[in-house]
Amino acid sequence: MITSLSNARVRSVIALKNKSKERSARDVFLVEGVKMFGEVPLSHLAEVFVSESFYNTYRDTDLIQRVPSCEIVADRVFSAMCDTRTPQGVICLVRQYHYKQMDLMGDGTCPPLVMALENLQDPGNLGTILRTAEGAGATGVLLSRGCVDIYNPKVIRSTMGTIYRVPFVYADNLDAALKEFRQQGIRLYAAYLSGSVEYDREDYRRGSVFLVGNESRGLTEQTAGLADARIRIPMCGQLESLNASVAASLLLYEAFRQRRGGT
Amino acid sequence: MITSLSNARVRSVIALKNKSKERSARDVFLVEGVKMFGEVPLSHLAEVFVSESFYNTYRDTDLIQRVPSCEIVADRVFSAMCDTRTPQGVICLVRQYHYKQMDLMGDGTCPPLVMALENLQDPGNLGTILRTAEGAGATGVLLSRGCVDIYNPKVIRSTMGTIYRVPFVYADNLDAALKEFRQQGIRLYAAYLSGSVEYDREDYRRGSVFLVGNESRGLTEQTAGLADARIRIPMCGQLESLNASVAASLLLYEAFRQRRGGT
Repeated sequence: MITSLSNARVRSVIALKNKSKERSARDVFLVEGVKMFGEVPLSHLAEVFVSESFYNTYRDTDLIQRVPSCEIVADRVFSAMCDTRTPQGVICLVRQYHYKQMDLMGDGTCPPLVMALENLQDPGNLGTILRTAEGAGATGVLLSRGCVDIYNPKVIRSTMGTIYRVPFVYADNLDAALKEFRQQGIRLYAAYLSGSVEYDREDYRRGSVFLVGNESRGLTEQTAGLADARIRIPMCGQLESLNASVAASLLLYEAFRQRRGGT
Repeated sequence: MITSLSNARVRSVIALKNKSKERSARDVFLVEGVKMFGEVPLSHLAEVFVSESFYNTYRDTDLIQRVPSCEIVADRVFSAMCDTRTPQGVICLVRQYHYKQMDLMGDGTCPPLVMALENLQDPGNLGTILRTAEGAGATGVLLSRGCVDIYNPKVIRSTMGTIYRVPFVYADNLDAALKEFRQQGIRLYAAYLSGSVEYDREDYRRGSVFLVGNESRGLTEQTAGLADARIRIPMCGQLESLNASVAASLLLYEAFRQRRGGT
């Protein structure tokens, strides 16, 4: 059992929690909590740490029995390894995903439906968008390099497990990636406050990519300029904009509504 | 100029920041930041505090000139009064709103559209829902007593100013409030994971109330039982549920889509 905060593996987990570079260098990310631990695909599971009291409670259950091995950590030390204020007693290292842009196109059972995000900053927004993307049947998520790190513990938490299932790619060159979609006959729709078309007047039953930008500044003019259409979510009152994850969710579910045969 | 952390007015602001009871007793709430300060209706503005450096920058602008008076606070002391990590230099006390249930029905120009929330816990979710409610043209928001305090600084921040404009009421008795709506001929729709009707197959052009429950547990059976219909937002993949503010936003915008004449 690990009982010291200066233990090398404990220090390594703390570094993974706080540093994107560290996660990238070791090609892993951290997952906390019972529910998300229970859903980790074993093929991606690298290491498991459990608090002493968690181990004593769950040692004979499938939750623990299904994993090849786990390291037990004294409760006090375990708390320091966690990002959450009330740790649930289990934290694991999961291998990062390496999708290619082609993986965002789906398996051919339905036309591609992709959410492309430019410089999105809020971890909660990114996690929520990934979660909604799965719900709406999106085939993938494309991210500009300026977006928040998807392996940030706050993002992981708010995906509620979707991180294991929705393909995503960070584009080194967002322009090139979007043009690649267009060459494949997929239409690009830019979410734009002063867009000329209301979002629910376009047809998303064909292959579609939605472009959503930064929380305060929206899409850059360069990226919006690549779109086939600039779409607007109408708003009543004196509101300047909707929350970015709400806007993304409305677009994804409008596409899903049409694809389900909504009238 | 206030230069001491032990100044009575400084201590009073800190108490207002942290304690719902204190806000309630003094019948005010705190608003931080330039944008939301600029939008405060003067009729509700009680006190204004600005940091010394903020005052030196903005003293001759409309932002400062429009308010009857403001108290200058040394920068170091000012930071302690704020809830945000990077304070923008202005914080104010705003008088609480006291709407009645009738105020949630709108002004008669369109049928009532109300979001009713039961035991919603996350401040960000509540703020986001209020923000979307204004955008979708909702006439009001009804909250059960078990919901997070709407005057919590995190809620206020994420409303982006909507707090000044969308009527809301905490119901001491949620059941009675919902029955009151029904007696007025307004239909109640419960967001329910195993609902029998898809959310976009009902007609919300008449007076409608959406019921959305707690982030983990959803609606209580008692509250869901009051609804005219239990509606379900369809989900692909292995997702168990959507984020509560996303679910609420999808319902509000589906109503708005229909009311705008969406086909």
